[in-house]
Amino acid sequence: MSYTDATIDQVDHALKEAQRAFLTYKNFSGKKKAAFLRAIADEIEALGQELVTVAMRETNLPEARITGERGRTTGHCRMFADLVEEGSWVDARIDTAQPERTPLPRPDLRKLSVAVGPVVVFGAANFPLAYSTAGGDTASALAAGCPVIVKAHPAHAGTSELVAGAIQKAIAKTGMPQSVFQHLHGAGFEVGKALVQHPFTKSVGFTGSLAGGKALFDLANQRPEPIPVFAEMSSINPVVLLPDTLLKDAEATAVKLAGSITLGVGQFCTNPGLIIAIANEGLERFIKTLSTEIQKVIPAAMLHQGIADNYARKSAQALEQKGVTVEGQASVASTSSQGKALVASVQANEFLKNPALAEEVFGPFSLIVRCKNLDELHAVITHLHGQLTASLIGEESELIQHTALLNSIIEKAGRLIINGVPTGVEVNPSMQHGGPYPSTTDSRFTSVGTDAIKRFVRPVAFQNFPDSLLPDELKQSNPLSIWRLVNSEWKK
Amino acid sequence: MSYTDATIDQVDHALKEAQRAFLTYKNFSGKKKAAFLRAIADEIEALGQELVTVAMRETNLPEARITGERGRTTGHCRMFADLVEEGSWVDARIDTAQPERTPLPRPDLRKLSVAVGPVVVFGAANFPLAYSTAGGDTASALAAGCPVIVKAHPAHAGTSELVAGAIQKAIAKTGMPQSVFQHLHGAGFEVGKALVQHPFTKSVGFTGSLAGGKALFDLANQRPEPIPVFAEMSSINPVVLLPDTLLKDAEATAVKLAGSITLGVGQFCTNPGLIIAIANEGLERFIKTLSTEIQKVIPAAMLHQGIADNYARKSAQALEQKGVTVEGQASVASTSSQGKALVASVQANEFLKNPALAEEVFGPFSLIVRCKNLDELHAVITHLHGQLTASLIGEESELIQHTALLNSIIEKAGRLIINGVPTGVEVNPSMQHGGPYPSTTDSRFTSVGTDAIKRFVRPVAFQNFPDSLLPDELKQSNPLSIWRLVNSEWKK
Repeated sequence: MSYTDATIDQVDHALKEAQRAFLTYKNFSGKKKAAFLRAIADEIEALGQELVTVAMRETNLPEARITGERGRTTGHCRMFADLVEEGSWVDARIDTAQPERTPLPRPDLRKLSVAVGPVVVFGAANFPLAYSTAGGDTASALAAGCPVIVKAHPAHAGTSELVAGAIQKAIAKTGMPQSVFQHLHGAGFEVGKALVQHPFTKSVGFTGSLAGGKALFDLANQRPEPIPVFAEMSSINPVVLLPDTLLKDAEATAVKLAGSITLGVGQFCTNPGLIIAIANEGLERFIKTLSTEIQKVIPAAMLHQGIADNYARKSAQALEQKGVTVEGQASVASTSSQGKALVASVQANEFLKNPALAEEVFGPFSLIVRCKNLDELHAVITHLHGQLTASLIGEESELIQHTALLNSIIEKAGRLIINGVPTGVEVNPSMQHGGPYPSTTDSRFTSVGTDAIKRFVRPVAFQNFPDSLLPDELKQSNPLSIWRLVNSEWKK
Repeated sequence: MSYTDATIDQVDHALKEAQRAFLTYKNFSGKKKAAFLRAIADEIEALGQELVTVAMRETNLPEARITGERGRTTGHCRMFADLVEEGSWVDARIDTAQPERTPLPRPDLRKLSVAVGPVVVFGAANFPLAYSTAGGDTASALAAGCPVIVKAHPAHAGTSELVAGAIQKAIAKTGMPQSVFQHLHGAGFEVGKALVQHPFTKSVGFTGSLAGGKALFDLANQRPEPIPVFAEMSSINPVVLLPDTLLKDAEATAVKLAGSITLGVGQFCTNPGLIIAIANEGLERFIKTLSTEIQKVIPAAMLHQGIADNYARKSAQALEQKGVTVEGQASVASTSSQGKALVASVQANEFLKNPALAEEVFGPFSLIVRCKNLDELHAVITHLHGQLTASLIGEESELIQHTALLNSIIEKAGRLIINGVPTGVEVNPSMQHGGPYPSTTDSRFTSVGTDAIKRFVRPVAFQNFPDSLLPDELKQSNPLSIWRLVNSEWKK
């Protein structure tokens, strides 16, 4: 089934409608927005097997993955519902008046976070549910009080239509302004460009390639009024294997990493694409086991042909680089639509000379960097770009000897993992899914977890307001019973 | 006295030193950073009258203003000292492990804010102390754990040298890495450009013109690794006079506004440059009194000749626009280095047609926009760019009738004031000094008050870390006794 691209007029109309909806919707109580978000979750569930069938057909993802992702999607809608219903997320601050202060009286000043305005969300190829139409960007923006316009990802436009229909039902059932959510198609760049450039657009969420994210980021910054773009783009998620632990646990570590590298045909932004270790006997055993594990992996279809082609090209390019050796690959032949698992290795000195080797290969690929010693390992870490995650495999006793390494690696990533794999992203208040550039365009924010709502708000201070005109969150009596910083003390 | 511009090599050296200092300084405890910030305040005070004399000579500001600003500067150093010593500002979140969770166990995940890296601060012409060398940008960056490189404002380079010397003494006295603060001169654009483009620079603070701020913003976004620029640039701080209240309080309101327009020769970013009202008999009385008050203002020297020239040119340009009438000006003649107070008026329909009239005239100037009715007043507000502040003068009973107006005006500003003037910026947790573009480049942050520290941090999550390797803020026993969100509950 094919869908017609939106026209530039339709984009303009959508943003005007979104702005109109914004002026009402932004003032809705947390309770009302919560009811809407919960209704979205209910309506997505009510789509039943049809959603699963269409999503499987469009993305080649297996049923368990789609149902899991559906659970995550309804889960984050309900999580944001709870967050805004409780209400403390607005970060209310109150400093009461001191009329007697000299030389000047202190005015009453109160602050909270307010919605920024219409948000444009680009559906992500690799998360047809959890990072697309009712994905984390949409749910957090709606929770914040921002209308959302989703540009469907063309590779799963039918899935997107179904979810958009569910959201529209939720709008009708909970009395939301109709245009608080709108859904457009656009296979080319023009629709996306028009959406980002429209003066009523106040923020953008995107998950995809570095080229795509960077293009949107540049467009947004070149506007007469620049706006933020939250683009999650490119991360190779380095895993550092500490030498003594590796000697002990080489095989178990290899099995664990093989699973993470090939999970979902490697199509996760947190896929471990780089393994860094000091060459020792343990590393050779690690590589041997990893290679054996990778050989066993049955090639599977990737999300769409473009991604499969890209993987074939990028992995072939990686292998052509100087000093790169194949260490293991899936033994079953793959078709052109499938991603074949592959691990390779290179000496650190070659890695340090060749920026191409630090680029993401989106798919079931990982490059092992063999370092001569700790200094070289440190140099490799310092050389890396920004990452979503960085992992360290090491026993506590060994980790403690490497605090300098930890001190460097923290500069490179948004999330640090000890003795675990980077795939698997918890959705909770402690999650940081966002790291230094180019993993995301803005390391100060997360796209996963409750704090994702912070991307779509800005603080506003109210000076000398009569209580009747203040938002409920700032009224003297604290009618919503939220946590507030009152005269520098946290109170409820 | 003149100072030599830094060379590009010196800029490179400074950033390398800053990065080295960063890797140590970022790990210093809140207590240690607090001692440093308090020592800065002490050393600034120890400069005594010399600082006041030099600052007065360089800026033409009167003694009371300089000593007041010195108090504000030492005040915010001590405020940030208190903030980081207490420690809860890191926004710690903890979600403990659930090994029994199905289908997958939940890992232990903990998050806090960490310093981003070296910060470049551009001294502000209009705040030689409070927004320059040891200004709010510097103090909040140092509090966050970021080394700072200040480019002195050439108009008060001697003042800047003195304060830099005080900070260097504080570094020596409290055992900080020497390069945690560095001070460079650069009268042209080249030094600033090199500072913003250097790969070790992670953030930029700037207060000044729209052209200057936008140039830095563009440079920062065009880097291979884009970085945030917090530029405070251009704001005309609209004041809306509601009609019934105006009929009652025309004269008192005019006197209050005249004071705000001409305070410090109008050289405040929060100067009320636009007054919007529905034409009635009250407005005519208001204008008459305002005009009388403005006539009485004795012209005074502006901060430097460039600013005086700019004011003369911009205010003359404003008067040349179609439909603009002078309503009052200082009756004493002014020299070319002085700013002559001036108020003018224009009909709303002309204002709406002419974008030049919505541009900032930095100095003691304000434009009154006469609206025919509420619709026109509403149209004027919708037409405005982003502002630091917006003020409404109206009694509660009248304000309540204009919630639609409030609903629109909130979209235009970072701080809303009822029955007060926008000049006078409190330094506390509730302050929001930052608004939609072009008042600042990032409305999501404030440059004044405790939350200014948030500009220079990013969150990092720690997954499955042994307690011994966690920062103190995240250790299980909460050794610093800070507020933390533990399994979705705020606890201390």
